Amino acid sequence: MRKIKIVKNYLKHAEGSCMFSMGETKVLCVASVEEKVPPFVEHKGGTHGWITAEYAMLPRSCSERSSRGKLSNGGRAQEISRLIGRSLRAAVDLNKLGKRTITIDCDVIRADGGTRTASINGGFIALALALQKLKRQKIIKEIPLRDYIGAVSVGIYDNGKKILDLSAKEDNNADVDMNIIMTTSGKFIELQGTAEGEPFSKETLDKLLNMAYAGIKQVIDAQKKALNGILK
Amino acid sequence: MRKIKIVKNYLKHAEGSCMFSMGETKVLCVASVEEKVPPFVEHKGGTHGWITAEYAMLPRSCSERSSRGKLSNGGRAQEISRLIGRSLRAAVDLNKLGKRTITIDCDVIRADGGTRTASINGGFIALALALQKLKRQKIIKEIPLRDYIGAVSVGIYDNGKKILDLSAKEDNNADVDMNIIMTTSGKFIELQGTAEGEPFSKETLDKLLNMAYAGIKQVIDAQKKALNGILK
Amino acid sequence: MRKIKIVKNYLKHAEGSCMFSMGETKVLCVASVEEKVPPFVEHKGGTHGWITAEYAMLPRSCSERSSRGKLSNGGRAQEISRLIGRSLRAAVDLNKLGKRTITIDCDVIRADGGTRTASINGGFIALALALQKLKRQKIIKEIPLRDYIGAVSVGIYDNGKKILDLSAKEDNNADVDMNIIMTTSGKFIELQGTAEGEPFSKETLDKLLNMAYAGIKQVIDAQKKALNGILK
Amino acid sequence: MRKIKIVKNYLKHAEGSCMFSMGETKVLCVASVEEKVPPFVEHKGGTHGWITAEYAMLPRSCSERSSRGKLSNGGRAQEISRLIGRSLRAAVDLNKLGKRTITIDCDVIRADGGTRTASINGGFIALALALQKLKRQKIIKEIPLRDYIGAVSVGIYDNGKKILDLSAKEDNNADVDMNIIMTTSGKFIELQGTAEGEPFSKETLDKLLNMAYAGIKQVIDAQKKALNGILK
Amino acid sequence: MRKIKIVKNYLKHAEGSCMFSMGETKVLCVASVEEKVPPFVEHKGGTHGWITAEYAMLPRSCSERSSRGKLSNGGRAQEISRLIGRSLRAAVDLNKLGKRTITIDCDVIRADGGTRTASINGGFIALALALQKLKRQKIIKEIPLRDYIGAVSVGIYDNGKKILDLSAKEDNNADVDMNIIMTTSGKFIELQGTAEGEPFSKETLDKLLNMAYAGIKQVIDAQKKALNGILK
Amino acid sequence: MRKIKIVKNYLKHAEGSCMFSMGETKVLCVASVEEKVPPFVEHKGGTHGWITAEYAMLPRSCSERSSRGKLSNGGRAQEISRLIGRSLRAAVDLNKLGKRTITIDCDVIRADGGTRTASINGGFIALALALQKLKRQKIIKEIPLRDYIGAVSVGIYDNGKKILDLSAKEDNNADVDMNIIMTTSGKFIELQGTAEGEPFSKETLDKLLNMAYAGIKQVIDAQKKALNGILK
Repeated sequence: MRKIKIVKNYLKHAEGSCMFSMGETKVLCVASVEEKVPPFVEHKGGTHGWITAEYAMLPRSCSERSSRGKLSNGGRAQEISRLIGRSLRAAVDLNKLGKRTITIDCDVIRADGGTRTASINGGFIALALALQKLKRQKIIKEIPLRDYIGAVSVGIYDNGKKILDLSAKEDNNADVDMNIIMTTSGKFIELQGTAEGEPFSKETLDKLLNMAYAGIKQVIDAQKKALNGILK
Repeated sequence: MRKIKIVKNYLKHAEGSCMFSMGETKVLCVASVEEKVPPFVEHKGGTHGWITAEYAMLPRSCSERSSRGKLSNGGRAQEISRLIGRSLRAAVDLNKLGKRTITIDCDVIRADGGTRTASINGGFIALALALQKLKRQKIIKEIPLRDYIGAVSVGIYDNGKKILDLSAKEDNNADVDMNIIMTTSGKFIELQGTAEGEPFSKETLDKLLNMAYAGIKQVIDAQKKALNGILK
Repeated sequence: MRKIKIVKNYLKHAEGSCMFSMGETKVLCVASVEEKVPPFVEHKGGTHGWITAEYAMLPRSCSERSSRGKLSNGGRAQEISRLIGRSLRAAVDLNKLGKRTITIDCDVIRADGGTRTASINGGFIALALALQKLKRQKIIKEIPLRDYIGAVSVGIYDNGKKILDLSAKEDNNADVDMNIIMTTSGKFIELQGTAEGEPFSKETLDKLLNMAYAGIKQVIDAQKKALNGILK
Repeated sequence: MRKIKIVKNYLKHAEGSCMFSMGETKVLCVASVEEKVPPFVEHKGGTHGWITAEYAMLPRSCSERSSRGKLSNGGRAQEISRLIGRSLRAAVDLNKLGKRTITIDCDVIRADGGTRTASINGGFIALALALQKLKRQKIIKEIPLRDYIGAVSVGIYDNGKKILDLSAKEDNNADVDMNIIMTTSGKFIELQGTAEGEPFSKETLDKLLNMAYAGIKQVIDAQKKALNGILK
Repeated sequence: MRKIKIVKNYLKHAEGSCMFSMGETKVLCVASVEEKVPPFVEHKGGTHGWITAEYAMLPRSCSERSSRGKLSNGGRAQEISRLIGRSLRAAVDLNKLGKRTITIDCDVIRADGGTRTASINGGFIALALALQKLKRQKIIKEIPLRDYIGAVSVGIYDNGKKILDLSAKEDNNADVDMNIIMTTSGKFIELQGTAEGEPFSKETLDKLLNMAYAGIKQVIDAQKKALNGILK
Repeated sequence: MRKIKIVKNYLKHAEGSCMFSMGETKVLCVASVEEKVPPFVEHKGGTHGWITAEYAMLPRSCSERSSRGKLSNGGRAQEISRLIGRSLRAAVDLNKLGKRTITIDCDVIRADGGTRTASINGGFIALALALQKLKRQKIIKEIPLRDYIGAVSVGIYDNGKKILDLSAKEDNNADVDMNIIMTTSGKFIELQGTAEGEPFSKETLDKLLNMAYAGIKQVIDAQKKALNGILK
């Protein structure tokens, strides 16, 4: 697994933020709090809050420049935005958040594979920092995090070699590409696996999931260190 | 599992089409052949073809009317379109397709859960019929299908009850929601699982994957019957 | 005139719906009721309701695939949507509808000429069924339909041959193309005639209008049969 | 009928232009020539040309300001653009135009009813001037106009009063609203009639068509005078 | 400087309007009053009003036709719209305007250089007429204009020749292009200067500003004459 | 003036890049080279190249989150993009660039006033690095830079206090706000000044321009140090 680097509070204005690096991949993750919820949450009544995410790549984060529109509004960006939001919502007791929305912006500064997992990992930190700030300001009574969540990619590359945390080069040539999001205790928040080339067996799946858990434990260790015991 | 119904060649103009029903869910799947490939396939040179998909819901396919734009261009629709395209490409040897694109339109006429898996199942039939037509017209020498592929949803509902092929009501209240796409021999093309409520364990995952395979075998049996031995 | 086929209540969720076929042309017409009116109707005060329509073609309803955007948002689709809405509004006493909007979605499943007239004919049935449902639910006291309305196309084709209910092939080669919408008693709701080739005389117009009325009587007979005396 | 006023060559850059007024309604009609045709005309081969139109209203041409987008791209604007284009194409032998496109921009400066008919009438003049210029420059051998075309609105207003050339106030309260486009000899290019309130009878239609022809003769007289015998 | 021509009250519906010509450049400037303010002004509380502008060119105002979208929504049009709005706001005591918005539409009918300065000059007149009307209707107590404002372009053309009020031909070949907006007493509202070719010195800037003031005095004289002592 | 910090080659993929900070304002400036020119440059023939820019702010770069669309496509962003492109083009001999386009992306990571001037200053460095790389790769013979260019803002704040390099707080309350872009020798590339409150005199303008030049000399010194004698 590539080296994790976390720079907390990268943006002075934001309620929570971090620059999250995993090898050469670098994502700026920023949490913004708004004191309102979207209509479909409003309709539920009660004190439900909401967490949503927006993922975008800067035009030259990759080896070739792409247009801003495609990188922030295209199908791929929307799909990843939805995945990040869904994963982070699973980490939070929305009922204890109160009637507010936290938006996690994940802007990819430099892309070298694993931008969606880096966004979830860094997004979790930005989210936790924002919740911590809300608690310090006595806007919420307790930090409504259920557990840490961590994400990694695993895959099969180069005729059957199983690898953890794929770089762009490995990802582009992978036969199988999986993204796994888990809790501290190894339970699944989300798993997405795709056979880019050959279909893969249950046995292969099991091995990849084991590798993923080993990686996720490292991610969560780094998060714990950065967040300094925010969550008991 | 709900009842599968397949009406082949539903549209007279299209190269391949079927109305695919799974219980109350009804999707019109249509394959259109064009004698050109997108630029990024063109760049590879050779005789590579391409398969892509567009998923949309009719405005009143659900219990409440939604706007056309959201139902055909929104993030969810784009995400599902990409899933269908990716799954069907995995079933085809694109190199043997020749420089042509097959677009699979999946229009949901009536939605009662499982529209994405129904789209893949019906989309496979439309695709196979289009390939059969190309072969009959001697445009291609052989039908470049590698294997049948089938898709089902599985989930956990109502305090831990594991179920196959979720209806809309079950889906909306599920704790875990998975979509599995497999080949005849039970290998994975794609798996996507999400914990909507509680994170789930590896043991639960294994049970759900077993259930899914049982369902997919029924889907593939129905496909085989409809396609009448198109694939040896 | 081509054969009319009406399948009522095609969609279980909708307040009113039918699959309307005229020869090879097949349009799914669906009525959705919402308990609000657009601002410009709201401004009138009172108990005015509103009826509007959206016409779209599925991507492969024609012999060549077209893009979804063009088929549902382009100038032609918007023009036809406006025609359908205007015609159906003329059939209803909007003042007796109450402050609600009925949206008629007309999705062309298969196109072989006459899709706009088929949409009006099927749209009328979907609308009538929705009104009937509102009455049964005691939301309205009486069904506010003024009269049946029927639509047909007439044209001049192949050096002066006058024809009723043009197919796509006839339509594409027509010198004159008219769409007529009439009531049971032969009064005009709307008429639109275009000389695609040679301008046409008043005498020709009169003959075409006579043919149209004969066709519209058949349409209204089919509607009456399907609706089973909904309107005295 | 309201007073017609024609100011030829209003824009110095354009191949043909006129400011066309009909009472208080004022439309700037401008013809621009481009030496290429759209793909669907290109496909026909030969020397076919094309004529198209764009209709838009300035934001404050009406009594209340509307947004530019709605006034130039909305359904109504697109429908009228298509009508103008279709009508003007009917006046020209496109085969003799050669491989070029003439775009007629009709920008409504001041609106007081009848903007679509004023656009067609003024658009015809702009088109004729552009064709005359092409002939003078020896780009075409003869002016490929088949005949003059004129347009008027007729309607029923105020409990059955039949009127010619409706102002905005009359139009907004009309029971029947028709737009008629005819040639010098009284043949139809296009007719569009709508019952806004009560359906209307064949007898009423006949009377309205007679009134329309009387008005169109005045329009064509004004065009002939302005164009000074351009067409034998 | 080219000849200024002002036709007041060009549009009967608008609160204020004029056709402003400067040589061959011709801009229709129209003021529309709405009894509400945008949210960011609303938030200030009090009786602040707002003035905004929209600049657009008609498709054939230039020597070649351009698309409507580009001419009214493109970057250049938006930039000029912002400049016009900012300049006119500087002429008004917004606090005395009351909670209303005046929108100035500047539609370029014919372009021969200097369309943005003509828009500001004509826009000032339309604005002043609208304010006069509000005062006459006793909606405001006094006309909240602080001073006249006038705008001209100056530039360097043809190897160092300094010129006032550039035509399109001069503008396209200018080495330096400046737009200056001043009050009666020669104070600056806005200045924008660009070196299209060679950078220019402070000395050159001073000379251009002197020329500009001479031109602006002529503009303000014409405005005063047209507005007939509206402002003491 | 606030402290300038330049981190060169921030993105490994790009031809040239730097993170440019001016106090709390931080802009990532990236140059991308493409071997083609836009059509209007192509039409000139010869070996003309092109330089263009795109300016955008990240959603939470300011104290409140804004939507991505507004921050990268709105009128303000387009206006600034055009200014950056124009200024950088003035620094380059486009004829010696050859038939290629350099796009400068300026993404504001953190905004505290002066983002447009920081974008020009950092954009110049990214551009120079890209040109240096092209020369090292022997794609161009010499670096076609004419001179350094530097940009600063100056303004009047708090009842007449003249200040250099405004922060967000100062900018929001400024009476006059100017952006000046100059060369090493103090010649103007562009100047834009706006009276937000009171119009300002020629005397004030002169003082502000002097302050600006002093600031620009500091900017250019920092650029020279970072670029290490790239330009003689």
